[in-house]
Amino acid sequence: MHAIILSIGDELVLGQTVDTNSAWLGERLATRGIPVRYHHTLADDRDIIAEAIRHAADRAELVLITGGLGPTDDDLTRQALADAMNVQLVEDAASVEAVESHFTRRGREMPERNRVQALHPVGSTIIENHNGTAPGITATLGNATIHVMPGVPREMRAMFRDLIEPTLTPDAGQRHVILTTKLNTFGAGESTIADMLGPLMDRQRNPKVGTTVSDGIVSIRLRAEFPTTDEAEQQLDDTLAQVHEKLGALAFGREDQTLANAVVELLTKRGQRLVTAESCTGGLISKMLTDVGGSSMAYVGGWVTYSNLMKMEQLDVAKDDLDTHGAVSETVARAMAEGALRHVRPADVSLAVTGIAGPDGGTPDKPVGTVWLAMARREERQPDTFHTRTLLLALSGDRDAVRDRAAKSALQLLRLDLMDQPWDLIQWAK
Amino acid sequence: MHAIILSIGDELVLGQTVDTNSAWLGERLATRGIPVRYHHTLADDRDIIAEAIRHAADRAELVLITGGLGPTDDDLTRQALADAMNVQLVEDAASVEAVESHFTRRGREMPERNRVQALHPVGSTIIENHNGTAPGITATLGNATIHVMPGVPREMRAMFRDLIEPTLTPDAGQRHVILTTKLNTFGAGESTIADMLGPLMDRQRNPKVGTTVSDGIVSIRLRAEFPTTDEAEQQLDDTLAQVHEKLGALAFGREDQTLANAVVELLTKRGQRLVTAESCTGGLISKMLTDVGGSSMAYVGGWVTYSNLMKMEQLDVAKDDLDTHGAVSETVARAMAEGALRHVRPADVSLAVTGIAGPDGGTPDKPVGTVWLAMARREERQPDTFHTRTLLLALSGDRDAVRDRAAKSALQLLRLDLMDQPWDLIQWAK
Repeated sequence: MHAIILSIGDELVLGQTVDTNSAWLGERLATRGIPVRYHHTLADDRDIIAEAIRHAADRAELVLITGGLGPTDDDLTRQALADAMNVQLVEDAASVEAVESHFTRRGREMPERNRVQALHPVGSTIIENHNGTAPGITATLGNATIHVMPGVPREMRAMFRDLIEPTLTPDAGQRHVILTTKLNTFGAGESTIADMLGPLMDRQRNPKVGTTVSDGIVSIRLRAEFPTTDEAEQQLDDTLAQVHEKLGALAFGREDQTLANAVVELLTKRGQRLVTAESCTGGLISKMLTDVGGSSMAYVGGWVTYSNLMKMEQLDVAKDDLDTHGAVSETVARAMAEGALRHVRPADVSLAVTGIAGPDGGTPDKPVGTVWLAMARREERQPDTFHTRTLLLALSGDRDAVRDRAAKSALQLLRLDLMDQPWDLIQWAK
Repeated sequence: MHAIILSIGDELVLGQTVDTNSAWLGERLATRGIPVRYHHTLADDRDIIAEAIRHAADRAELVLITGGLGPTDDDLTRQALADAMNVQLVEDAASVEAVESHFTRRGREMPERNRVQALHPVGSTIIENHNGTAPGITATLGNATIHVMPGVPREMRAMFRDLIEPTLTPDAGQRHVILTTKLNTFGAGESTIADMLGPLMDRQRNPKVGTTVSDGIVSIRLRAEFPTTDEAEQQLDDTLAQVHEKLGALAFGREDQTLANAVVELLTKRGQRLVTAESCTGGLISKMLTDVGGSSMAYVGGWVTYSNLMKMEQLDVAKDDLDTHGAVSETVARAMAEGALRHVRPADVSLAVTGIAGPDGGTPDKPVGTVWLAMARREERQPDTFHTRTLLLALSGDRDAVRDRAAKSALQLLRLDLMDQPWDLIQWAK
């Protein structure tokens, strides 16, 4: 069985909205072993949609359509489907009631124009929508089964998962299960990672190993295509283990796990508490840490000392040091980290960041992207004595990129430290 | 002239990557008055690509193709284009040199497999790539002009902007210029905004007015379609003025402007300086403010008091108040805002946030989404006296949503205050 995905909407074709439905459906189908031939994104044009439906029904046994089911004149998917099937539209009484009750529950009367949402081609069946007013449609054309779903991602996903996916049974004979997974790394560039992986990245290999980069995170994507789920899982795990071995501590998590997740987990496990002092990252490290639910076990809080005044008054950074070395210096990073730890007695460890994020403020000596990190740790038996390490980063990119990489580098350093791994894994340390 | 856009790549069809190239190209073409018939996303399959190229060339005078120009066996767009044109591939000597020098500049030798990137169908011409190794191709098939570009967004965008867009000349006679713009609001839901806009949102209207929501920001999208650029601009401006009038101070900016942009601009203009004290938002307000380049003129810094300890020790919140009212209370929000202002003498105004972001920590009295905001302002002639206002929010959604809306509400409140506008525009105030 093959599938084709159609997305309908002027806003998609005009580029006002990026189509995420097709990618989501493509991934769901792949994991069920149903390969997708193509995606097709169409304007709200009845003839063009009808032609695309006929074209798709000729080339695949499964056609998934999203969008164009709203109540307005621009919503033409119903009519186009009827045209492609060469039949008329009829009203579904149960659907009228369902749309009516959707409005009644919200204390409103159904606008007359919503009645059009109960229309469907003769010979097709209605798919209930539990999350909105637009019911879906299931129809047959030639050898193809066609499912039409609303374009609103939340409604589409629920309808597909609950009512359409369970009906899909790929032919047992030619079934190819495709399983994918993702391992995330931070601290080295894509080409360094590729060198480390070597022959594992051979294009002919199955499972296939590839890399993608997003905001400095290099993700290793694994894709296993095998006749059975068991075999695909087994092979995926095996390749994942090999990838892990090559990358060591650079890899911090699977799928959607973030560096902050990994750090909060490690701190919690060791019963340690962190405090932060941020200048150029301006709260980004705090934000990343507190994105993690339950982070208050591991994270006490911190300062955003975006001005010299706050560095001096709140963290006891010496005016002399600021004058002599500048706010972006090893001395000041160290003083910020130690000041934070001194002020919060129950904290065990602190992170401090000071740097030049740009676009202005760079000098020949300290260009944009110059960032000093410091990590201070309270000595066990001498709570007023700190063991402090610093690292100078030379980051590239715009303001957002410098801030993002600086914050992630700080989290990765702390993580490496907690795992007794060397800091020099971080490639952009100077 | 009409256009069709094809995107090539297994990763797109499988949903591992969301296709953003098509939306970007669709928007560029729309602003030049070239309507797009459809986007087509295709797997790395030579026959399917060739068929789609023929299909597109039959239906549009302009076909834009991205992807499938890399050096590996999976990259089949060149061959498929030659198939569609019914010709052979030839090597372009200048391109071999260009690819070679791309590697030489990086101190590496050209891998032999990159030579394939200099191939192009007989009768087509090469488009230079100044940002990567894959040259583009311009070809003619029937009445259609076809441009093939690399799939890497950065390379594709540069090639299109610099070398392809200047060659596009829509037929003067039937030209329809489509101009779009976006006005951003925060503080009311989409349906409230729709009610305020009323007949301006009529679907038949030109310029057309629609709304989209993203992370609590309701954006009003305007789309003007007219024979000339002048007329489209004039009409767009006129409708924008009407929209502005209906929405008043809820609207904070155009296009990509953020609430933080608007706040930093207002503070800078009035010569005022802000300090923050964040609990549940955990640095998100700081992060948003310091996302803005040059924000240090207006933003001094702040505290992330993620623990009661930090609230007490750094902001002088009374232990009694925490015990009696809880950390999420009007009293504590007020104490945080005033404590921040007391500690930073040069600051004129402070924002404080304390709330329950979830997923845990909610109670029947204070469910997840309960957030107290406070804003303190230093009295002009009495620097130790503060004028403080508070607001209780009842937010819905998950942890990310509660934190995001709380931070944006705080920024919008400050903005309204700076503009002498009433706070009750914020719809989710309790």
